[in-house]
Amino acid sequence: MTKPIRLEVVGTELARMRQAAPLVHVLTNEVVGEFTANVLLAVGAAPAMIVAEEEAAEFAAIASAVLINVGTLYPARYAAMLRAVDAAVSAGKPWVLDPVAVGFLRYRTDAAQVLLTKRPAVIRGNASEILALAGLSQGGRGVDSTASSHSAVTAAESLAEQTGAIVAVTGATDYITSGTETIAVPFGHPILTKVVGTGCALSAVTAAFVAGVSDQAARLSAVAAACAVMALCGEQAAKQSQGPGSFQPSFLDALSLLDPASLRDV
Amino acid sequence: MTKPIRLEVVGTELARMRQAAPLVHVLTNEVVGEFTANVLLAVGAAPAMIVAEEEAAEFAAIASAVLINVGTLYPARYAAMLRAVDAAVSAGKPWVLDPVAVGFLRYRTDAAQVLLTKRPAVIRGNASEILALAGLSQGGRGVDSTASSHSAVTAAESLAEQTGAIVAVTGATDYITSGTETIAVPFGHPILTKVVGTGCALSAVTAAFVAGVSDQAARLSAVAAACAVMALCGEQAAKQSQGPGSFQPSFLDALSLLDPASLRDV
Amino acid sequence: MTKPIRLEVVGTELARMRQAAPLVHVLTNEVVGEFTANVLLAVGAAPAMIVAEEEAAEFAAIASAVLINVGTLYPARYAAMLRAVDAAVSAGKPWVLDPVAVGFLRYRTDAAQVLLTKRPAVIRGNASEILALAGLSQGGRGVDSTASSHSAVTAAESLAEQTGAIVAVTGATDYITSGTETIAVPFGHPILTKVVGTGCALSAVTAAFVAGVSDQAARLSAVAAACAVMALCGEQAAKQSQGPGSFQPSFLDALSLLDPASLRDV
Repeated sequence: MTKPIRLEVVGTELARMRQAAPLVHVLTNEVVGEFTANVLLAVGAAPAMIVAEEEAAEFAAIASAVLINVGTLYPARYAAMLRAVDAAVSAGKPWVLDPVAVGFLRYRTDAAQVLLTKRPAVIRGNASEILALAGLSQGGRGVDSTASSHSAVTAAESLAEQTGAIVAVTGATDYITSGTETIAVPFGHPILTKVVGTGCALSAVTAAFVAGVSDQAARLSAVAAACAVMALCGEQAAKQSQGPGSFQPSFLDALSLLDPASLRDV
Repeated sequence: MTKPIRLEVVGTELARMRQAAPLVHVLTNEVVGEFTANVLLAVGAAPAMIVAEEEAAEFAAIASAVLINVGTLYPARYAAMLRAVDAAVSAGKPWVLDPVAVGFLRYRTDAAQVLLTKRPAVIRGNASEILALAGLSQGGRGVDSTASSHSAVTAAESLAEQTGAIVAVTGATDYITSGTETIAVPFGHPILTKVVGTGCALSAVTAAFVAGVSDQAARLSAVAAACAVMALCGEQAAKQSQGPGSFQPSFLDALSLLDPASLRDV
Repeated sequence: MTKPIRLEVVGTELARMRQAAPLVHVLTNEVVGEFTANVLLAVGAAPAMIVAEEEAAEFAAIASAVLINVGTLYPARYAAMLRAVDAAVSAGKPWVLDPVAVGFLRYRTDAAQVLLTKRPAVIRGNASEILALAGLSQGGRGVDSTASSHSAVTAAESLAEQTGAIVAVTGATDYITSGTETIAVPFGHPILTKVVGTGCALSAVTAAFVAGVSDQAARLSAVAAACAVMALCGEQAAKQSQGPGSFQPSFLDALSLLDPASLRDV
């Protein structure tokens, strides 16, 4: 059963996250680190990129949540990710998996299968990636999805049931599911696909929103709110920009200026 | 014999590249990854940074073209580059060499000599780098050229003949040569040298333009058009900005908004 | 004894640095490379990120100054840093240590203790980091300081005396000390803490300002001027921006446009 998101819930979740100012341990790809950090800062969280195998476990146990993004995975970074994930789970901290281009390239697909066994709190990907993780497809063309988000809702629900994670499949409409309950976020703007790292940064924001949240229904709301905040700010920034270059600063401004009290259902 | 570029050719090449929307496998330096990806997206191509030795060959064979930039070369990345280049050549896909600071530091200079034997479709560098690759100089001061682009035209022609690559030596005027024929692109703006990665991103755009192009005369036009698109958008963005900070978003907007039909010779 | 900075000194130092256009060898964390390079270019220096163990010593000896930032330290990068530092010291070139999150994570804290023995010309950190380096605290929460800059002035003076470095502890007010003399820079804006890399970039700018300066009193002025330039441009950019996104381009523009002649004490 799919329900639309309620804006008042987005406002409540955003205010809660900002109040907590969670420290997000970011292990992401090497292309989007700066943008991801700036998105987390703008929305009200605190990023820290701690990438060495020597430090990943120590920091993951202290952080509020961990993001794992396999976009530029290689062995040393993968080893650090495994340490971070194990430490996060041991410390009871949620971690988020962003399976960039999984299903398309073997090394990262194998790695993602290992990571899936380590109890992610959230999985956030595009339709091709979610279909591949659920075992239903060979994936897309690199980092872009070749399938619509709607076509992967059933796969997302199945993946959520298999793994116990909240699964977010994002696209023109985002679908966020606990397996039994699914929320639709029908916001956003196509220009978000013309700026690198918007999906990766959403996964990091998702980690910020689920920090400190352990109930599954509450996590579902938190992840849906994270998707809605990014999509609404994308719409806002698209109105104020001439192209993908001016979109990026406007988007960060919008994340920073978004007032939870302005989010009301009509 | 040096001819000036014709704007109508630039428009035709830009429209052709956008129609193809080539997937560019980017193996670049760690400083300019985000900007390079955003430039490729803005101009109409699709970037993918796949950097592991475990995945580089698999992806290069699928991608439309490969970019190799040695700006922050180190052994693991160099190994991935060699795999990508070999796979690209086997699959008949063009690859572009950006020899950042070659001639100036031994490790990368030795690596560039190895890469040169692997049949790059295009070599794009500043005058110091092209002089060094052609065996005529010890190179510049780090990443900046200490020589004018014009002083390296003969070296570029010689390098093109030696390697079979189209060679682009960029500067105040860009010169693009097949060895026998040379095109001058007299556009651009000095502020492009005050924003990191504009040269590196040009090399990536060059890869997008030569994707799917195998004829040498057609590649010469494609590379010259790539240089012209970047230089013209640089001029446009310089007019709309107050300094190097506001230049960057304006430049990405200009790449996205450039209308091929507006490019007409007078 | 703490004195306020004099604006005329800032102007004189900025003009001197721009005239020299120092080549800064940047070994920084993987999140802030692009921003750091753009800050150095905007302010009038030349950045070069040379990161391989194979090249770090060769380049450090040629560069005007070296920046070492341990934000994303791991063994291969640490090895390159040690080579760069040793080569810089041998060649009589100053190097700057930015001890990101030192005191908080063991691996980097141990590395920083080794680096401290290698005669940095400048150490630039927040209060938590400077307290930890001086042996007075266990450090902050990741990359943020949990202590005010003023609370670390005594620690900074002690660290300067122990190491022979100029120590800058930055925050709402920056304090720059030679151990015996301390300068206060009471400029800046809180939004600087909402954009990733402003502190890291300041350390790089500090390296540019101390390039070619060997006298300890002159280094004190140079580092204080670097802090003042960044803080004043932060104030200027804050006035012209709506949030952290539009702040970044405005800040780079301000660095580029800052006129030394406009810096006069009233």
